[in-house]
Amino acid sequence: MDQFRVVIIGAGFAGLACARKLARRNCQVTVVDRSNHHLFQPLLYQVATAGLAAPAIAAPIRFLLRSFHNVTTLLAEVRNILPVERQVSLDDGSRLDYDYLVVASGASHSYFGRDDWAPHAPGLKTLADAQDVRRRVLEAFEYAERAATAAETTSWLRFVVIGGGPTGVELAGTLAEIARHTLPEEFRRIDSRQSEVHLLEASDRVLGSFPPALSIKARAQLEQLGVTVQTGMRVVDIDAAGVTLQDHTRLASHTVLWAAGVQASALGKLLDAPTDRSGRVAVQPDLSIESHPEIFVVGDLASATSHDMPVPGVGAAAKQMGITAARNILARQSNARTIPFVYRDYGMLATIGRNAAVGTVGRMQMSGRFAWLFWVCVHLFYLIGFRNRLVVLFDWAWAYVSFERSARVFTSEKATREATDGHASPPKPA
Amino acid sequence: MDQFRVVIIGAGFAGLACARKLARRNCQVTVVDRSNHHLFQPLLYQVATAGLAAPAIAAPIRFLLRSFHNVTTLLAEVRNILPVERQVSLDDGSRLDYDYLVVASGASHSYFGRDDWAPHAPGLKTLADAQDVRRRVLEAFEYAERAATAAETTSWLRFVVIGGGPTGVELAGTLAEIARHTLPEEFRRIDSRQSEVHLLEASDRVLGSFPPALSIKARAQLEQLGVTVQTGMRVVDIDAAGVTLQDHTRLASHTVLWAAGVQASALGKLLDAPTDRSGRVAVQPDLSIESHPEIFVVGDLASATSHDMPVPGVGAAAKQMGITAARNILARQSNARTIPFVYRDYGMLATIGRNAAVGTVGRMQMSGRFAWLFWVCVHLFYLIGFRNRLVVLFDWAWAYVSFERSARVFTSEKATREATDGHASPPKPA
Repeated sequence: MDQFRVVIIGAGFAGLACARKLARRNCQVTVVDRSNHHLFQPLLYQVATAGLAAPAIAAPIRFLLRSFHNVTTLLAEVRNILPVERQVSLDDGSRLDYDYLVVASGASHSYFGRDDWAPHAPGLKTLADAQDVRRRVLEAFEYAERAATAAETTSWLRFVVIGGGPTGVELAGTLAEIARHTLPEEFRRIDSRQSEVHLLEASDRVLGSFPPALSIKARAQLEQLGVTVQTGMRVVDIDAAGVTLQDHTRLASHTVLWAAGVQASALGKLLDAPTDRSGRVAVQPDLSIESHPEIFVVGDLASATSHDMPVPGVGAAAKQMGITAARNILARQSNARTIPFVYRDYGMLATIGRNAAVGTVGRMQMSGRFAWLFWVCVHLFYLIGFRNRLVVLFDWAWAYVSFERSARVFTSEKATREATDGHASPPKPA
Repeated sequence: MDQFRVVIIGAGFAGLACARKLARRNCQVTVVDRSNHHLFQPLLYQVATAGLAAPAIAAPIRFLLRSFHNVTTLLAEVRNILPVERQVSLDDGSRLDYDYLVVASGASHSYFGRDDWAPHAPGLKTLADAQDVRRRVLEAFEYAERAATAAETTSWLRFVVIGGGPTGVELAGTLAEIARHTLPEEFRRIDSRQSEVHLLEASDRVLGSFPPALSIKARAQLEQLGVTVQTGMRVVDIDAAGVTLQDHTRLASHTVLWAAGVQASALGKLLDAPTDRSGRVAVQPDLSIESHPEIFVVGDLASATSHDMPVPGVGAAAKQMGITAARNILARQSNARTIPFVYRDYGMLATIGRNAAVGTVGRMQMSGRFAWLFWVCVHLFYLIGFRNRLVVLFDWAWAYVSFERSARVFTSEKATREATDGHASPPKPA
């Protein structure tokens, strides 16, 4: 029997799980990704806040797939998808033929039509994003130490996080810890404990996808750490000098981080299928699209339902979708019936800081130290690669006893010299 | 007694040692560096070859100096030195007054007047350099896997290292190991073992600063690893497609690394003192300059002699100079006589690959596995910070048993999309 060809676009949780499920089957699988590594996104905020080095949460895609000889990995950017020709075209002009296509290109952040905010409020989706955020956060304290006026010092010591979902909560909590526990001894002209961390959420509570009781607990734990939480507060403008809120309050700040909107990958628009407001592709119960049953859309790019509920954009769901898509490809190839996707919800977890987290497991709710320990164990368990688990465990243990953060290093020396967007420039003397 | 003011420019081995020696003395010390971290440069090639993560060999300068309350750290670029006014001016226009100035701004690579080679043959002095080299090396294999013609595959699988000093030897040896041991299983269209690594040295032997017998041994160990070594071979041109040698041979290669010339920091020219051909400042026996006894020049920027021999540009010498400068500042301040700098040479070591190294300790020469183990111990011992020692030890132990390299991650996704210098563009189909 001839081998059939599967192309998988994207090697996140969904794409990687799909490739693994198709390994050693009677098919030729090609995984295309524009970066060379699979990223463990749940820990990306720790790279951004200098707690972990980038390689600790990333592994080369072709290393993860090396022993599956029917799987080829290509570092490439997809330029176009041609559903009628059953081809994917790449950035070098070459084309890949497929019998089945799995689109798992994920999502990025969205500024709700205000892309001019992007240079002033970076989001957090890739390792490059995380290193940019890390540089800005560490530079802010450096510039505060050099600031010529009290107003400038305040602007550099004020951090604004926009969006109260898990990423925003994690960033805000960690920034407060850095200012309070990691840095105080190291500066001579400023007191890093006088930093302000503001968490702004447009809806009426943080962690909106969690049970309301846990939102309240999360907020209390954030405030305990020194974070100023404002809910029901929309941002109406962002520029290099700060943020304007809907009540016309102005927060002068040089370090604004974006953890609000999500926009699905633009590849979704190339498929002959309806997309929702955030660009996600409506899929059939078996995760294929109606017009092309040989095309599957999985992960954050898919707008799927399970038990009549929308499937959340989390790593566990992406992984499960990848596996279901692989199964359905094998089923379709052998003329069997495809199975509908069923999301198994194991719960949710969000960490806030040292000994502070909230989460659910089934119907059980937890918060505080126990939730935090549970979070640590779960994330170590799911982290890719035995080696990375040990590395991260060591870094966390070290951070726990020393309050030190092990990756407080940034490299873009140029940024300290050249003012690109008004942000990276050192404070001018008054 | 009034505290006197010392400004130290640069927090490499020399500057950091000087600051530490002045800690808790009756002076106000300001350390100015344009990056936020002290870098353990002897291991920089391991970051470049994906063996270590950047934070493993770097630590925040202000963290290293946090407990010395008379020492202030500033992240800033020095714009000018004004010896008459006894001031240093910074990039934000502010000025620092000093009673004593220590210039320890080191050296960078030099292209012998051919700066147009820089985009095609990156050097290795900063973490940003190392991450650029890492990206190019890892991308080369990726592009080879995608290449449309055999000639392009060969160009991507051919690595040229220019300069047979310790850095060139370390890079060439490690590249050969990666191609032979780390990557073979991971590619489907190419065989990474068919990579070529060329080491080109203009003089008649590699490791010219070592005893000739060790140069011969080093060359044999490199060839054993699969490196093609050419000595007495000058490069006459470098472009995006490869290297032209003095005998008109052409080596088609997209990955050329520069480990040849060294150029002292441009700050040396701002002092009222003679400089040599590579920009190093001629210093008095006590490391001050003749025209301004309150200015000391140390580390790679200084052209110093000891026992009538030029002091080599190595980390140990830089450290010792930093300490001597600090002592002489204290001596001068108390009107005591300054002491001349005496270099204590503990030997030299260069690593080539797994179980392969050469070195001297006093009159003893060593090579092979024993030299390599000695190299491992020495580098772990001198690495800054207990934590970093453990991290690097773990990474090395892991690499030794697994042949895997733990930091095979690069982040500049943009580089894979945009052709900047002809290097980063993916191969076009024929």
